[in-house]
Amino acid sequence: MKAEILTVGTELLMGQTVNTNAAEIAQMLAEVGVGVYYQTIVGDNPERLEQAVQTAVSRADLLVACGGLGPTEDDLTRETVAQVLETPLKRDEGWARRLVELFERRGRPFGKNNLRQAMVPEGGILLENPNGTAPGIYLERGDLTVVLLPGPPHEMRALMREEVMPRLALGLAGTQRSAVLVSKMLRVVGVGESRAVELLEPILASQSNPTIAPLAKLAEVHLRITASAPDGAEAERLIAQASEQIRAKLGDAVYGEDETTLEQAVGELLKQQKQTLTVAESCTGGLLSHRLTNVPGSSGYYVGGVVAYSNAFKIAALSVDDEVIEREGAVSDTVATGMARGARSASGADIAVAITGIAGPGGGSAEKPVGLTFIALADDSGEVCRRYEFWGGREQIKARAAQSALELLRRHLLNRGE
Amino acid sequence: MKAEILTVGTELLMGQTVNTNAAEIAQMLAEVGVGVYYQTIVGDNPERLEQAVQTAVSRADLLVACGGLGPTEDDLTRETVAQVLETPLKRDEGWARRLVELFERRGRPFGKNNLRQAMVPEGGILLENPNGTAPGIYLERGDLTVVLLPGPPHEMRALMREEVMPRLALGLAGTQRSAVLVSKMLRVVGVGESRAVELLEPILASQSNPTIAPLAKLAEVHLRITASAPDGAEAERLIAQASEQIRAKLGDAVYGEDETTLEQAVGELLKQQKQTLTVAESCTGGLLSHRLTNVPGSSGYYVGGVVAYSNAFKIAALSVDDEVIEREGAVSDTVATGMARGARSASGADIAVAITGIAGPGGGSAEKPVGLTFIALADDSGEVCRRYEFWGGREQIKARAAQSALELLRRHLLNRGE
Repeated sequence: MKAEILTVGTELLMGQTVNTNAAEIAQMLAEVGVGVYYQTIVGDNPERLEQAVQTAVSRADLLVACGGLGPTEDDLTRETVAQVLETPLKRDEGWARRLVELFERRGRPFGKNNLRQAMVPEGGILLENPNGTAPGIYLERGDLTVVLLPGPPHEMRALMREEVMPRLALGLAGTQRSAVLVSKMLRVVGVGESRAVELLEPILASQSNPTIAPLAKLAEVHLRITASAPDGAEAERLIAQASEQIRAKLGDAVYGEDETTLEQAVGELLKQQKQTLTVAESCTGGLLSHRLTNVPGSSGYYVGGVVAYSNAFKIAALSVDDEVIEREGAVSDTVATGMARGARSASGADIAVAITGIAGPGGGSAEKPVGLTFIALADDSGEVCRRYEFWGGREQIKARAAQSALELLRRHLLNRGE
Repeated sequence: MKAEILTVGTELLMGQTVNTNAAEIAQMLAEVGVGVYYQTIVGDNPERLEQAVQTAVSRADLLVACGGLGPTEDDLTRETVAQVLETPLKRDEGWARRLVELFERRGRPFGKNNLRQAMVPEGGILLENPNGTAPGIYLERGDLTVVLLPGPPHEMRALMREEVMPRLALGLAGTQRSAVLVSKMLRVVGVGESRAVELLEPILASQSNPTIAPLAKLAEVHLRITASAPDGAEAERLIAQASEQIRAKLGDAVYGEDETTLEQAVGELLKQQKQTLTVAESCTGGLLSHRLTNVPGSSGYYVGGVVAYSNAFKIAALSVDDEVIEREGAVSDTVATGMARGARSASGADIAVAITGIAGPGGGSAEKPVGLTFIALADDSGEVCRRYEFWGGREQIKARAAQSALELLRRHLLNRGE
C-alpha cells in the first residue's frame, strides 16, 4: 500500500509551525506496515490544494490529509477532496445537532459556518472527534482510501489512534501486504544517549531485523525497536528477544515501554507499595505536580503539594526555618531537606519530594549558578538530598529538575521494594 | 517568485525525524519576500525523487532541495537534479582536495565515494560548507533558480544564511520582486475561532494585503497578519493598520502579540498594579502554577500556591470547611470560593485564584460530568466564582481550565485597572 500524507495550512507552508503532524501520522502508518511514499504541504489556497489532492489520489492508495477542516473560509480540505472525487457532500444531522448543542451549552452564539463541519462526502464515514468541533472522515472508493483529519495535534492524534488505525488494520488484513512492521519503544532514564549507545554497542552493531534506533529526548532516551515479519506474532517474538537483550544491558534504567511516561511508572510503584506522596516545589513551580496529576487515577496516591516560590511561603506553608534560609540561602541542601520534611508533616503523606533551585535566566551567581538544584526526599526512614547542575533555558531547567525528581523517587521506590 | 521546498530523506518520510529544516527554510525565504507555494518530502528513492524534482522545476521559479547530498549510495539529490536539468556534473578540484586533506588530518581512510560530494552541475556555484563534507550548490538557469543544501540542520542553516540568502537578495534586487513579507501574530482569548471570524467578517472579506489568517489553538485563537510591501517600513505600516482594525472589533480579547503568552500578559498586569498572586489548584494539579512560573521574573509577583488534590489537603492547607465539602462536594462553587479565600489568607498574597473540577476520565456523574469546573478569585473586595464545562481528554481539560483561570484573572485585573 502506497500512502501519501497531505498537510494543509499556510502556517506550515510558511514555516511558522513545524509539521509534527506529518511525522506522527507517518510513524503510526509504519506501525501497521504502510509505507509513506510522499508528503506534500500546501497552504490554504484552493487551486494548489486541488492540484495536490489530484496528484495524491492519482499516485497513492491511501491519502491522509490533515488540516483545513475547520469552520472558516480558509478551511477548504473537505470541499476540495469531495470535488476532486466528484462526490457530493451531505450533512450529518447527528453531528450538526451536536455542534448546536455544544454552542448552546457554552452559551456562545452559533455561527452558520460551523455547520460546514458536519458535511461528509457521500459514502464516507464521520469519525467523531472527542476533542473538537471538526470530525474526521474515512472514505473508501475502490482501491483508494481517503482519510481527512483536523489539524490540531491532539485532535489528529486521538482520531488516528482510535478511529483510523483500527479501520486501516482491518482493511489491510484482507489484502496482499508484504510484511508487518511492528515497533516497540523502550524508555530509558538516568543514562544519556551516548552512554546508552556505548552499553548497547554489541547489540547495535549486529542489528538488522529488528532495527534499534536510539532517540534522545529531554533527560531520557527512547530506543525504538522495529521488526519486520510475515505476521504480527513473529514480529512480536523478534521484538521481545531484542527487548530482553537491551534490558540485560541497561537494567532498571529501562523504566517503561511505548507510551508509558515516567510519572506513570512512578505512580505504579506508589500504588504497588501503597505509599502516598506529596511534593514541595520551588524552581519547578508546579511542573512536577502537573506531571504527576496527568496520570488518570493519581488521586489514589498523590495527596497534593505546595509550590513554595517565595521564601515567606516556604516558611509559612512548609515550616522551613527562616534562619536556615538566611544563612544558607533558599537554594541549599538544608532548605531542600527542610522543605521535604515540612511537606511530609503538613500533608501526612508517606513520602515527600522537594525541589529548590535556580531556573534562571536571572538569580545565578558564581557560587550558585543558574541550574543549580537540590532535590530531597523524606520518608519514615529519614531524608536524602542530591545536588544537580542542569543546563539550558528556564523551561529546560524546570523540565530536567522535574524529571530528575521523578527518577530520584523511582530509584527510591525500587530500592525500597527490594 | 514561487518557491518550492523539497526535503529528501527516508527518515523524514517515515516520520522518524520531524521536518524542522523545511520550516526554517520557509521562514528565511519569507524574510526576503519569497513565498513558498509547495513543500514536498520524498525518501531516498531514485524514481520518486526524480518525479518530485521534475514536478518542482515545472511549477516553481525557485527550488530549494535539502538533504541527500552525502557520500553514501542513498544520497541521490545532486545526481537526480543534474539529470532532470540535463546538465553534466563536473568535479570541483578545490573541494576534492579539501576532502582528501580533511580525511588525512583526521587520520581516516578516504573512501572514493566521498568525491561524489565534490561534483557540481555545470554552471552551478559550489557553496563552501564550513561544517561538513557536502557543499551546497547554487544554480541559475533562465528564470529557474535551484539551491541544493545538505540535510544536517546546522549545515543547512549556515549555508542558507551565509551563502544562499545574499545571492537570492541580489538576484531579487534586479528582478521584479514583489515585496518584503512581514508577519505579526495577534493572540486572542475568550473568543472561539468561529466567533472571532464572525466578528471580523467585514475585515476578512475585504482582505488582500495584508492577509489575515485565523488559527485555532487550545482555548485561544491566533490571527496571523501578513503584509507584502516594497520595504519593511511600508509592510509594518500595513500591519499596524490591520492590527488596529482587528483590535477595534475584538477589544480586550486581544491579549498579546507574537510570542507573548497569556501568563506573560497576566504577569505584566500584576506588575503594573503591584499585586501579588497565589493559586490553589485541584483538578489542574499544578499546571496553572507551572505556567505562571514559566515567565522569567514571575517570583516578583507570584508567591507560590497549593495543589490541594485530596480533600484532606484542601482542609489542612486551605482551611476549607470539611462540612461544606461533605455537603456540596469538592467540585462546587462554595469549595472553589473557600479555596481561594483560604489560599489568600494562608499566603498573604493580594489575589488568589482557585480551581476545582473533574479532569476525568473517571469521577464524573450525571449531575457533575467530567469537565465540570469552578474557578474562583478572591481579593480585598471579596470573591467571585464562575462555572465551566470543559470538554476533551484529561490533559485538555486541565489545559482549558488553567487557560480559563488565567483569562478570569486577566479580566479581573483589566477591570480593576480601569
